[in-house]
Amino acid sequence: MEGGVTAAKGFEAAAAAAGIKYQDRTDMALIYSEKPCRAAGTFTTNVVKAAPVKWDRQVVESGHRPQAVIVNSGIANACTGEEGMRYCEETAKEAANALGIEKKAVLVGSTGVIGMQLPMERIKEGIRSLAAAKTSGLSGGTAAAEAIMTTDTRKKEAAVTVEIGDTVVTIGGMAKGSGMIHPNMCTMLAFITTDAKISRKALQAALSEDVQDTYNMISVDGDTSTNDTVLLLANGEAGNPKIKYGTWEYEAFKAGLHAVNETLAKAIAGDGEGATALFEAKVVNADTKEQAKTLAKSIVCSNLTKAAIAGHDANWGRILCAMGYSGAQFDPEKVDLYFESSAGRLKIIENGVALPYSEEQATEILSQPEVTAVADIKEGDVEASAWGCDLTHGYIDINADYRS
Amino acid sequence: MEGGVTAAKGFEAAAAAAGIKYQDRTDMALIYSEKPCRAAGTFTTNVVKAAPVKWDRQVVESGHRPQAVIVNSGIANACTGEEGMRYCEETAKEAANALGIEKKAVLVGSTGVIGMQLPMERIKEGIRSLAAAKTSGLSGGTAAAEAIMTTDTRKKEAAVTVEIGDTVVTIGGMAKGSGMIHPNMCTMLAFITTDAKISRKALQAALSEDVQDTYNMISVDGDTSTNDTVLLLANGEAGNPKIKYGTWEYEAFKAGLHAVNETLAKAIAGDGEGATALFEAKVVNADTKEQAKTLAKSIVCSNLTKAAIAGHDANWGRILCAMGYSGAQFDPEKVDLYFESSAGRLKIIENGVALPYSEEQATEILSQPEVTAVADIKEGDVEASAWGCDLTHGYIDINADYRS
Repeated sequence: MEGGVTAAKGFEAAAAAAGIKYQDRTDMALIYSEKPCRAAGTFTTNVVKAAPVKWDRQVVESGHRPQAVIVNSGIANACTGEEGMRYCEETAKEAANALGIEKKAVLVGSTGVIGMQLPMERIKEGIRSLAAAKTSGLSGGTAAAEAIMTTDTRKKEAAVTVEIGDTVVTIGGMAKGSGMIHPNMCTMLAFITTDAKISRKALQAALSEDVQDTYNMISVDGDTSTNDTVLLLANGEAGNPKIKYGTWEYEAFKAGLHAVNETLAKAIAGDGEGATALFEAKVVNADTKEQAKTLAKSIVCSNLTKAAIAGHDANWGRILCAMGYSGAQFDPEKVDLYFESSAGRLKIIENGVALPYSEEQATEILSQPEVTAVADIKEGDVEASAWGCDLTHGYIDINADYRS
Repeated sequence: MEGGVTAAKGFEAAAAAAGIKYQDRTDMALIYSEKPCRAAGTFTTNVVKAAPVKWDRQVVESGHRPQAVIVNSGIANACTGEEGMRYCEETAKEAANALGIEKKAVLVGSTGVIGMQLPMERIKEGIRSLAAAKTSGLSGGTAAAEAIMTTDTRKKEAAVTVEIGDTVVTIGGMAKGSGMIHPNMCTMLAFITTDAKISRKALQAALSEDVQDTYNMISVDGDTSTNDTVLLLANGEAGNPKIKYGTWEYEAFKAGLHAVNETLAKAIAGDGEGATALFEAKVVNADTKEQAKTLAKSIVCSNLTKAAIAGHDANWGRILCAMGYSGAQFDPEKVDLYFESSAGRLKIIENGVALPYSEEQATEILSQPEVTAVADIKEGDVEASAWGCDLTHGYIDINADYRS
């Protein structure tokens, strides 16, 4: 369904142009819930954690009931020491005043350049604009999704409905990605809202379990960010009977959450810095999930494979090579490999050795905007996918001089 | 000192143009020893192992005394099944006939495209040319070093002498690298020869220990090849008293070997595909060697950091970020970071926070052909270096369509 963070009942959003780094676009976003929310979060495993990551983790783990998220793009508030932590608190305080809520009910998020301090006067002005502009329509959510972009070329929104008993529950979200994308616990920034009534334990469990198969299975450049954050807010306004961990309703909620997370994760991978294609690696007939995931992720992380995808070149040797150094065991001489896309499906190798395939057909298949490599390792019946993108001149252009 | 694989006494070399893939250059090399050698080797840890890797491992581990190495560029003989293994044997057989030695005394090496079969008639013709052309002069070694290049832009040779007691021992070598460089056990292809008299155990130990600090500390693109091989041949012609493991003489030999290996490893890193600079990451005042190595290697493997080096941009946040996700523990708020090169040395951050440094000076320092980032983590007194290169448009150009 259409929509993003304002798709679920009782959520509002807004964007503002605070002039933090960009001069000609919005760069701050607000997500607001009429009612206090249960909150769940997953955060970067990077030893270097940005100030907002530390702030949010405190709020989520303390069991406070957040009602607002303030996000800025342009500056990451990472490697900013004590001063950076103080700015999180000032941001929360300003938002609390403007919205008439508690300071501890405000979550914060930042993305952009590492090591610069936030211009706090502009941030505070931005917060006041956001509070005045918040709206429950889908347009508010879209404006927020646009404001959190950095080198992203497309906004990333997703929403679904799930029936919990007789009640329709909505889950919606937005995300940003593009560079420094190799999530380990969760991705750059994703904000999911739901009107489901759900226990805090079930909410955190659903998120923690699902990021393993979604955000943690994408990679743009192998660089795990200092700011990776996924926040999930539930305000209970759908009026469903409370969802408890381990129940059938929990599984239904998790399936809906998975649809939103997978859509956003794939959108981040396909819009990686400089990317011209979403590249999926799918490992089938594996013995264990862990093995399938390790192999799939190694393929989408390989610079050589990604450069070959950019050149629409069926360089399958690089894929087998990447599987080989992944750390997972398998028998290379049992592997079948296929390329597939909207232009068809082609078997390239059988039992580890090349078939006499048509290079023209392979190039045609690999020239589509979404390309999949399927590796059949013939050991069991488990499968897993990972998502990445091609490696192009655009990535170099963006990153050889990102700060200026 | 000048020279490569023919610097040590009793070694000869040659190159030949066999037309395997390239039409206008040499593509086969021979290293030959007048006398049978003790041999040591380290090989790729990739699950997908090229046929020559399997062949050489067998020869080295069986304790046979090799006298010749036949290397070809253009085709890697990887993912080639039974047929590829048979070609190793046929190559060894042909070389044995041409040189008048045993089949088991012939080592082989291949580098190039994965998945294609070797044109055996051309290979055999090449072997006969090599046998006829072998020479003990330095020019033979240089010709061999040129013949094994693929996307390398410069040949890679190194040689040193070490005094063992009253005897001068020589160690020389050649290597090739460029792409699919992220060695795990050893690098793409390196061949080291020495006239030292040394026990097989000491020879293998010296090599196995030293690759950990040299070839295993470089990375061009994070892709561990299917063909990584380092071979070390000792023919004993220097006439020194036999070197035994653990002695003072062993340490002297290992120091010489280290000088050759480090020179070749840095040459591979600095000549990475598309590279314009050799990039060294040095972590000082670490608590353990393992910690220092993990942090240093993570920095030189970061695509974002490498793109910043290409742009001569002092984007230190990416370096701290890469240290943070390396898996090693440290306190980000204690880190000092410096950039240094022939143009000077500049302190960029102190205790994890940016200093007011001159961007112009930083750009000047980062515009040199060899650039070092030094991270002082203030925990102990151990240090380690890793070597990589910048990530440029050239890498994309080479790899988006390498096969054609």
